[in-house]
Amino acid sequence: MTQVHPPARLLMGPGPVDADPRVLRAMAAPLVGQFDPFMTGTMTETMALWRTVWDTTNEQTFLVDGTSRAGIEAALVSLLEPGDRVLVPVFGRFGHLLAEIGARAGAEVHTIETEWGTVFDPGQVEDAVRRVRPRVVAVVHGDTSTTMAQPLADLGRIAHEHDALLYVDATATLGGNPFPTDTWGVDAATAGLQKCLGGPSGSAPVTLSPAAVAAIGRRTQIEAGLRTAHDVPPAGAPIRSNYLDLAQIMEYWGPRRLNHHTEATSMLYAARECARLLADEGVDAAVARHARHGAAMLAGVRGLGLEVFGDPAHTMHNVVAVRIPAGVDGDAVRGTLLDDFGIEIGTSFGPLHGVVWRIGTMGYNARRDAVLTTLAALEHVLRRAGHPAPAGGGTDAALASYAEAP
Amino acid sequence: MTQVHPPARLLMGPGPVDADPRVLRAMAAPLVGQFDPFMTGTMTETMALWRTVWDTTNEQTFLVDGTSRAGIEAALVSLLEPGDRVLVPVFGRFGHLLAEIGARAGAEVHTIETEWGTVFDPGQVEDAVRRVRPRVVAVVHGDTSTTMAQPLADLGRIAHEHDALLYVDATATLGGNPFPTDTWGVDAATAGLQKCLGGPSGSAPVTLSPAAVAAIGRRTQIEAGLRTAHDVPPAGAPIRSNYLDLAQIMEYWGPRRLNHHTEATSMLYAARECARLLADEGVDAAVARHARHGAAMLAGVRGLGLEVFGDPAHTMHNVVAVRIPAGVDGDAVRGTLLDDFGIEIGTSFGPLHGVVWRIGTMGYNARRDAVLTTLAALEHVLRRAGHPAPAGGGTDAALASYAEAP
Repeated sequence: MTQVHPPARLLMGPGPVDADPRVLRAMAAPLVGQFDPFMTGTMTETMALWRTVWDTTNEQTFLVDGTSRAGIEAALVSLLEPGDRVLVPVFGRFGHLLAEIGARAGAEVHTIETEWGTVFDPGQVEDAVRRVRPRVVAVVHGDTSTTMAQPLADLGRIAHEHDALLYVDATATLGGNPFPTDTWGVDAATAGLQKCLGGPSGSAPVTLSPAAVAAIGRRTQIEAGLRTAHDVPPAGAPIRSNYLDLAQIMEYWGPRRLNHHTEATSMLYAARECARLLADEGVDAAVARHARHGAAMLAGVRGLGLEVFGDPAHTMHNVVAVRIPAGVDGDAVRGTLLDDFGIEIGTSFGPLHGVVWRIGTMGYNARRDAVLTTLAALEHVLRRAGHPAPAGGGTDAALASYAEAP
Repeated sequence: MTQVHPPARLLMGPGPVDADPRVLRAMAAPLVGQFDPFMTGTMTETMALWRTVWDTTNEQTFLVDGTSRAGIEAALVSLLEPGDRVLVPVFGRFGHLLAEIGARAGAEVHTIETEWGTVFDPGQVEDAVRRVRPRVVAVVHGDTSTTMAQPLADLGRIAHEHDALLYVDATATLGGNPFPTDTWGVDAATAGLQKCLGGPSGSAPVTLSPAAVAAIGRRTQIEAGLRTAHDVPPAGAPIRSNYLDLAQIMEYWGPRRLNHHTEATSMLYAARECARLLADEGVDAAVARHARHGAAMLAGVRGLGLEVFGDPAHTMHNVVAVRIPAGVDGDAVRGTLLDDFGIEIGTSFGPLHGVVWRIGTMGYNARRDAVLTTLAALEHVLRRAGHPAPAGGGTDAALASYAEAP
């Protein structure tokens, strides 16, 4: 077999999207030893850079070596003891994932659900918190399955007033939508690189408030042969995972550098570069960029005569759900876009399968040329599919949106 | 902060070692979508390449997205139901890790232990299997903490005769020592890229025998919202992890391509390239290369007047434990090697801490120039530390070893 040689693609789905070439180059840097001063220095730098991305002063801001899903499970399995109640407000596919992971961790899972395309009013969450009295409220910020972003500004307060911690899965939103961890009172949040951060999947940034750190610190440590993790004997049930045990991972990233896994150094380099690029651009500027290009894409698909799904007051900046017009074969359109133009847009899950395409504008691909190219190609393919897309309707509308953008 | 710029290093410890530049370049290839035909084709190619590395016909040969430790935990949490008995023969640090992970998975863990520097006679394992009657025998192949490689040829038979499955952690040996999965009757084995395979940490190759697949298939699936994983209702206890649930991961790598995590595409490229390079070289040739350079390093350190630790009949090819001479500060020698020569050799854990250095010759660094450079530098540093290393004693002995090698 030959060396890997991927076809040229423009990835305009709900993620993963094309990685920034600077991130790919960072991954090609040579390795160093696990406890080399350069390695530990790079880990410390990476923690600082991700504090900027998370907009937090949380000391415990680090990476889990796995995809965004590893970060979710690390947070839930480390925070939830068997039998603990967790409340999961579900407004899309990934809410179900949080519930499933909570159940696997042995927690007593309570869900509230709202129709796809809507989000929860804070009062609904507060009512459920009063009823369930959970130890953790676990919620997705932006659920790409519906393109909705759950407002979080009140949820930290609500959780804390009822002695619960707030965990947020920010995989799909971080870097492209506001996420002020401390201001919102988020106790634990996890993400990935492959959405708005411009990197490949495979590293899960995590940030933990002091309250979350304290909760995790109470869990009993299972001693691994030769290591001792804590000076003070804790009392809670042991964490059910070694690999995703945030207590041990914190000790590995902390000043004691207690050995845990062998750090995935190339992914560390990638995560550092993603955060460095975002910090250089400025988090607010990156969020504004996602808002600008997301608005242009939204205007563009409407300019093509297409309708969008979901509550427009609560859509994420970085992905839009576009209704497949009557009489058009959605998968055939996606196939032609990929085969003839090398452009990928997304299909959908569950109740939206066959109903909408999902088009992303995020990370490295939150760019004017990517938006206009996608709209021009989509116009061409829609006309071939028999849909009367107005000539230039998408790109003109997008250009008008850019002209009006701040 | 600037882009990542690691110092030049020659990593001659017990791993991670320098990645092959061809693997680092493979990681810089562009991303494609999660279900792009190129992506699924690359996954299928990667499975075939790793079957060559594992010397197996196991259909279920794939990757877990995490470090080698993620692979270990995936195997154990998927094979062991809460309350199941697992027997772990412990002959070094990583045996303790297997026991700990088994305990976290809720298993009833039984260990047998042998002195560091020795391995088990098959009869000792068989006696313990008769006594414990475990569902799984879980053992490390090569434990870098002691440099010993446990003979495995009889363990599959022993396990199977007593209705147990054999799991092996081959992280430190695969690609550099013989590992005929099928011939040895190994039911589940996991590894990493960062030892003899020439890649970075962050992807865990896994292979599962049909019996292991059947055992995992019996576990009850927790349905994740919108996905259905199995057509036949299973009966065992649910797997406690979602991220490391091998039943779901198999469905993701299998023809149904059921969505699970977002594949860590850059690490997939790395894992594919590691296996491709090994398959091109030939697995037997790669093992012979590790044997040749390991023997030269062993001869070289003896030529410097140093003694080695452990049973010479059962050492791994790719790492040697060298006794720190009396009066020499082991950490100071390591520091000088790193500072003045950019060469890293390893410290040790537990009973061997301060007693031995661990010097590796593996993966991309199982090379003549790497062996000779390390020995020349070590001679220099030993003399500066007051140890009477004979001039040219290391390199001459290594060259003589090479001259005698087949």
